[in-house]
Amino acid sequence: MHISEIETPAIMIDLDIMERNLRRVAEYARHHDLRLRPHTKTHKIPALGRMQIELGAVGLTVAKVGEAEVMVTSGTPDLLVAYPVIGRRKLERLMQVARAARVTVALDSVAAARQLSDAAREAQAAIGVLAEVDAGMGRVGVAPGEELLQLIRNLERLPHLSFEGIEFYPGHIRGGDDGGRKEIDRLGAVVGEMLAGLRRAGIEARIVGGGSTPTLFHSHLVAGMNEIRPGTYIFNDKNTVVAGACAYDDCAASIHVTVVSIARPGQIIIDGGSKTFSSDRLGGAGEATFGRLVEAPDAVFVKLNEEHGYVDVRRAGRDFAVGDRLRVIPNHICVAMNLHEQVYGFRGETVEQVWKVEGRGKLQ
Amino acid sequence: MHISEIETPAIMIDLDIMERNLRRVAEYARHHDLRLRPHTKTHKIPALGRMQIELGAVGLTVAKVGEAEVMVTSGTPDLLVAYPVIGRRKLERLMQVARAARVTVALDSVAAARQLSDAAREAQAAIGVLAEVDAGMGRVGVAPGEELLQLIRNLERLPHLSFEGIEFYPGHIRGGDDGGRKEIDRLGAVVGEMLAGLRRAGIEARIVGGGSTPTLFHSHLVAGMNEIRPGTYIFNDKNTVVAGACAYDDCAASIHVTVVSIARPGQIIIDGGSKTFSSDRLGGAGEATFGRLVEAPDAVFVKLNEEHGYVDVRRAGRDFAVGDRLRVIPNHICVAMNLHEQVYGFRGETVEQVWKVEGRGKLQ
Repeated sequence: MHISEIETPAIMIDLDIMERNLRRVAEYARHHDLRLRPHTKTHKIPALGRMQIELGAVGLTVAKVGEAEVMVTSGTPDLLVAYPVIGRRKLERLMQVARAARVTVALDSVAAARQLSDAAREAQAAIGVLAEVDAGMGRVGVAPGEELLQLIRNLERLPHLSFEGIEFYPGHIRGGDDGGRKEIDRLGAVVGEMLAGLRRAGIEARIVGGGSTPTLFHSHLVAGMNEIRPGTYIFNDKNTVVAGACAYDDCAASIHVTVVSIARPGQIIIDGGSKTFSSDRLGGAGEATFGRLVEAPDAVFVKLNEEHGYVDVRRAGRDFAVGDRLRVIPNHICVAMNLHEQVYGFRGETVEQVWKVEGRGKLQ
Repeated sequence: MHISEIETPAIMIDLDIMERNLRRVAEYARHHDLRLRPHTKTHKIPALGRMQIELGAVGLTVAKVGEAEVMVTSGTPDLLVAYPVIGRRKLERLMQVARAARVTVALDSVAAARQLSDAAREAQAAIGVLAEVDAGMGRVGVAPGEELLQLIRNLERLPHLSFEGIEFYPGHIRGGDDGGRKEIDRLGAVVGEMLAGLRRAGIEARIVGGGSTPTLFHSHLVAGMNEIRPGTYIFNDKNTVVAGACAYDDCAASIHVTVVSIARPGQIIIDGGSKTFSSDRLGGAGEATFGRLVEAPDAVFVKLNEEHGYVDVRRAGRDFAVGDRLRVIPNHICVAMNLHEQVYGFRGETVEQVWKVEGRGKLQ
């Protein structure tokens, strides 16, 4: 099928670029002796998880139990649930997953650990745990230092759990003029001090995991970190470009849209709004633009409602007609993937793959 | 089933409040002799569309062909597609829908009308059309005046289309201190002048449709408007409250969440972020808060990532523990419904209904 036959709006994935992205990061991890455990929240497709494993990833990462249930079908030997699992029914479901793959959970409270231990005991399972540390983002995670030591001591005491190490998410580092180097150095200092504290307390952290796509290629600069779990790198998006971690040519996914109205001078309306792109603004700056138009980089995607994308075309340098097809590189591809039932993989102008987004909408 | 047995995050609908909302608007429309054609993008559930028809709605409104395909199963005799349908395959699908219900399409270009006319001819169907007018929102719609007259004259010439009237969406009116009265008066003046222009040109607009939930109860003040198509009123949300069109007690839908982290002092993390609520900010103000916590109205839902909701609880006046269940009234219920596979209807504390959100994710 020719790409123009796919009804819009649709996420289209350039397979050549995607495969290059996958290989580049697999090689980077290998070169720097970093274990790679990709976060699959970006693609949500077991076939792509399998590809990541085949390229050398040690396992896969998910956020929710529902995603674990989907992603275990990729055949991965190892799953990290990078989110505390709270509630009896969810824990029972997780123990089912643990029959098919080794499961590790990242958490930051004794309450979460105790529930997990109880569920593992009932299921006669062994579950790995990572202590979640706040390395500066201010989201989840205990403070490095005394709080962390206390959490780990509690984890080590709980039956059916094995303490594997620590994890943190440096989502507060978004690149910038120096590619985030100064902040990476600061992160390195935090991690170094934390690991020294653990050593003094006689605690061995086998896994020291962190990383994000914007900081990806600086990971080897954080001494002691031995595992990375980037997600976005498989496709990349406008956020990744703006963070300085890739170029637009490295963006494998774009959303194909159609112009549906040109009634207002200087503006076109495309058939994708927040239901297609999500209303996520550009990270960091908070700038209210919603993607880059490939065919008109100087047009500005200024606003969206559910089904309407507003593009200011006064400086676009071209005309538009109702029915024109355009490609948009979204701000944030992960949330866009979650809005689409299926996505298309193409090479040249031929659609080669139709993938159901099996991990879409797994909220629980 | 007791409501506490439903895994979080989940949209829970208080059926008593929902039914009261439906009856109130049905009565308002009847009292003021306004035809009611609810927009079903809010609920996306055919069973609820059927309820709206049974309460006197003349038909239902959808945005996309995929929604029309779902909503026609409600048994509605009449469907308005309030969005231009562009592209051959979509038009073929729409003609299939037109075999089961009378279909009307709102559009603002001759290009869209011509495609529609061609498809109707091929399918030997008769399709109604509404001329979309920009009544101040600056999204879609031709300018009232000469542009509108030209569009209508073109519509009247195209075979297999029957010109039914005009429609506009006053989404720019968001209430405020005077409940939007001044802006409603301005809208009334625009509509009045437009209708006078049509009369002078000898054009009869059988349907003059507009309205939104925020302006809902002012609709009778816009002389000449005879049809309204509000969507949100079935559930209401924080936007509706802030616009002054309802009270929090009229919000039928809330999202039940669980506290998953309290590691950072003064903050809790709940298990719903942009994948659960959408990242839609509060309308109008652009204020970056993401919903109202029913159990702690003074807590501030300040930020979200995909799976994490950040709530500032420094002024909440209560403590929180990992595992606590909370209810959140979202900013924008329509986009939240689009993120959930199923939703739950309850009375008192008993779940009476599990509805699949059949119209969810219908982007094409």
